[in-house]
Amino acid sequence: MSIKGNMIIGQSGGPTAVINSSLAGAFEAAEAAGIKKIYGMHYGIEGFLNENILDLRKHIKNAQDVSLLKRTPSAFLGSCRYKLPKIDGNEDVYEKIFSIMEKYDIQYFLYNGGNDSMDTVKMLSDYAAAHGKPQKFMGIPKTIDNDLPVTDHCPGYGSAAKYIATSLKEIIVDNDCYGPYRTSVVIVEIMGRHAGWLTAAAALANNSPDLIYLPEVSFDPDDFIKRIKDIAKTKNSIVVAVSEGIKLEDGTFVCEIGSGGGKKDAFGHTQLSGVGAYLASMIMDKTDIKARSIEFSTMQRCASHVVSRTDADEAYNAGYLAAQAAFAGNTGEMITIQVESRAPYLTSYSKFDIHEVANVERKVPLEWIINDGTYVSDEFIAYARPLIMGEIEPYYSEGVPQHLSLAE
Amino acid sequence: MSIKGNMIIGQSGGPTAVINSSLAGAFEAAEAAGIKKIYGMHYGIEGFLNENILDLRKHIKNAQDVSLLKRTPSAFLGSCRYKLPKIDGNEDVYEKIFSIMEKYDIQYFLYNGGNDSMDTVKMLSDYAAAHGKPQKFMGIPKTIDNDLPVTDHCPGYGSAAKYIATSLKEIIVDNDCYGPYRTSVVIVEIMGRHAGWLTAAAALANNSPDLIYLPEVSFDPDDFIKRIKDIAKTKNSIVVAVSEGIKLEDGTFVCEIGSGGGKKDAFGHTQLSGVGAYLASMIMDKTDIKARSIEFSTMQRCASHVVSRTDADEAYNAGYLAAQAAFAGNTGEMITIQVESRAPYLTSYSKFDIHEVANVERKVPLEWIINDGTYVSDEFIAYARPLIMGEIEPYYSEGVPQHLSLAE
Repeated sequence: MSIKGNMIIGQSGGPTAVINSSLAGAFEAAEAAGIKKIYGMHYGIEGFLNENILDLRKHIKNAQDVSLLKRTPSAFLGSCRYKLPKIDGNEDVYEKIFSIMEKYDIQYFLYNGGNDSMDTVKMLSDYAAAHGKPQKFMGIPKTIDNDLPVTDHCPGYGSAAKYIATSLKEIIVDNDCYGPYRTSVVIVEIMGRHAGWLTAAAALANNSPDLIYLPEVSFDPDDFIKRIKDIAKTKNSIVVAVSEGIKLEDGTFVCEIGSGGGKKDAFGHTQLSGVGAYLASMIMDKTDIKARSIEFSTMQRCASHVVSRTDADEAYNAGYLAAQAAFAGNTGEMITIQVESRAPYLTSYSKFDIHEVANVERKVPLEWIINDGTYVSDEFIAYARPLIMGEIEPYYSEGVPQHLSLAE
Repeated sequence: MSIKGNMIIGQSGGPTAVINSSLAGAFEAAEAAGIKKIYGMHYGIEGFLNENILDLRKHIKNAQDVSLLKRTPSAFLGSCRYKLPKIDGNEDVYEKIFSIMEKYDIQYFLYNGGNDSMDTVKMLSDYAAAHGKPQKFMGIPKTIDNDLPVTDHCPGYGSAAKYIATSLKEIIVDNDCYGPYRTSVVIVEIMGRHAGWLTAAAALANNSPDLIYLPEVSFDPDDFIKRIKDIAKTKNSIVVAVSEGIKLEDGTFVCEIGSGGGKKDAFGHTQLSGVGAYLASMIMDKTDIKARSIEFSTMQRCASHVVSRTDADEAYNAGYLAAQAAFAGNTGEMITIQVESRAPYLTSYSKFDIHEVANVERKVPLEWIINDGTYVSDEFIAYARPLIMGEIEPYYSEGVPQHLSLAE
């Protein structure tokens, strides 16, 4: 390959615990290739449009910084939720992006994100192709939701799944502490708007919740209460893992029943919250069993103190390979992970045409959802277990994990 | 000392991440003293009254089990929230307890818990004194709330504080990820009904929340909104740590305003929840700033994957010393921790007459609450920092931390 010009990388969408490992991978690939300037977008494409551009070598100064970067939650460069407008009629936006790239002699453009971010890579590479621009655009997959198609799984998912399994295991032991002297239900609400990958990870806890409800199948409140009553006949501690996005058979989000109409975010998605609290109230209303709810909330994506080493390594590799591919002249592609063998766990990486990736959500296969939609199968466990294996211990200082920050 | 008869230990009240380290300490002290039978109460004094008694050597079989026990969340023996009735008029309950002790030749009775549990130790030692019973009763302090008097701090607090500081640090970095492109407030609701020790631990996060509200001082909603608006003039990410138990100047719990009247638990305490959600709604109602809330919930007490080694060691020592004291003939006392020096951190242990301990709540000193009740001082940091120092790495298997369980 003949390297000419500089590289830039941006982080987009909700962070994951390993999004900065992908940054570390891309950074070290650029170092290895002798790239002159390694830039970072400060706040993704939105910041880029305002020329918020960082010289990454000023912020990642040595191997120690790279190690700390891998242990840093959130998006080190800052993220955005900015969606590029369609090309037709908005050529000025695209011309602006390319003019900034030319100004900084940026030839390699890496973007790390989920579905919406892959859409950005697609549009920019489309525009480049249509206008004879030489720059290369590569996507690095990232989402805790694991809903990107094509790739076997997505960097970010394994660590979120490990956090969920770890915390849920502790909650299950904790809730059992009064034994036969108190019956109680804990509803644990887990992220995942349309895909149940994260909620399914509850089954990795080993001591296992009693019921697991994914958004892939419809939720029946009467059946739910009946099952709780049945379980309570033989068990005192009942733990239920439930996706924020479960829906009734008619398509109504369960959280909407509770909160009376959901708000919408910038992308027009319904804002979800409160399913757990609603189901806990329902149990207290329809049975004499004590119930409460716990939401893992954003800790699912930012708990860098519980990271899967497998996930972090794969995120690093995806970043590294995306940079290498761009240097080799690839464009309009996303790095994907294939699993050659689940046991032993062996993987390979490929590049996939971004047009087949963008804006398609991959869900948990229905055949992996068992017990009338209340649990997941051993096939899911076999799929997900390798993804949460291994640890990266935080660097503690003053009793708390240390992070790398741009401010330093 | 002349050892005669057997020992029993019980765990009571809400668990902590290190309550099982105290069990490990008492167990190893009993082993070292050559106690014939080491019993555990299955579900505290409530289980004991039903003769639910465990032979601990069958469940803690070797040094590996002890190591795993220290890494196990919740109460290994099971806990209870049972309050002994007053002696007068309830002599039958006390006679039953002593007859079970005699049946099992239990001479040493250790009870590990908070205020209510120390009350149990007091009543039993009082009854023994009044009726010429020879058995010895010792209390081991335990509470995440850190509200026990006499002792400088309480085993269980340091680990909960470390979990809060660690998770909050991650949440603060996470919430900042959109930088100048989105202003948002996160309200983090932290346990602590009347004492703000846990909420104050938010200041240990290093990157620090913007506001910290403890229940020790009254909460002014108008001032709160004014401060949020002021901070939003210069910052885009605002994080607020708030105790579940904050009250208005007239004594009303803030959560009661939101939920319209709180429920009460077995001890007549008002059940608190929803302060965070209420304050987030208030911000959205009175400003144009996006706000949401996160509750750490029971993860504060059960997150054994983030344990303070200092706390775990102190919990172990308190258990060990309580057992030793009982063997030496002490009774009606609780082990306390004195801090001889904060830097370097040096401690000593004493025994304190339980009559002066029971049912008094210790709060955060008002002089440590600064900025008109919206933050804590460096004196608090100096007090609390040593308590969160050091780690105990979990033993991972299949990607999740392993725990010791009675079932095994």
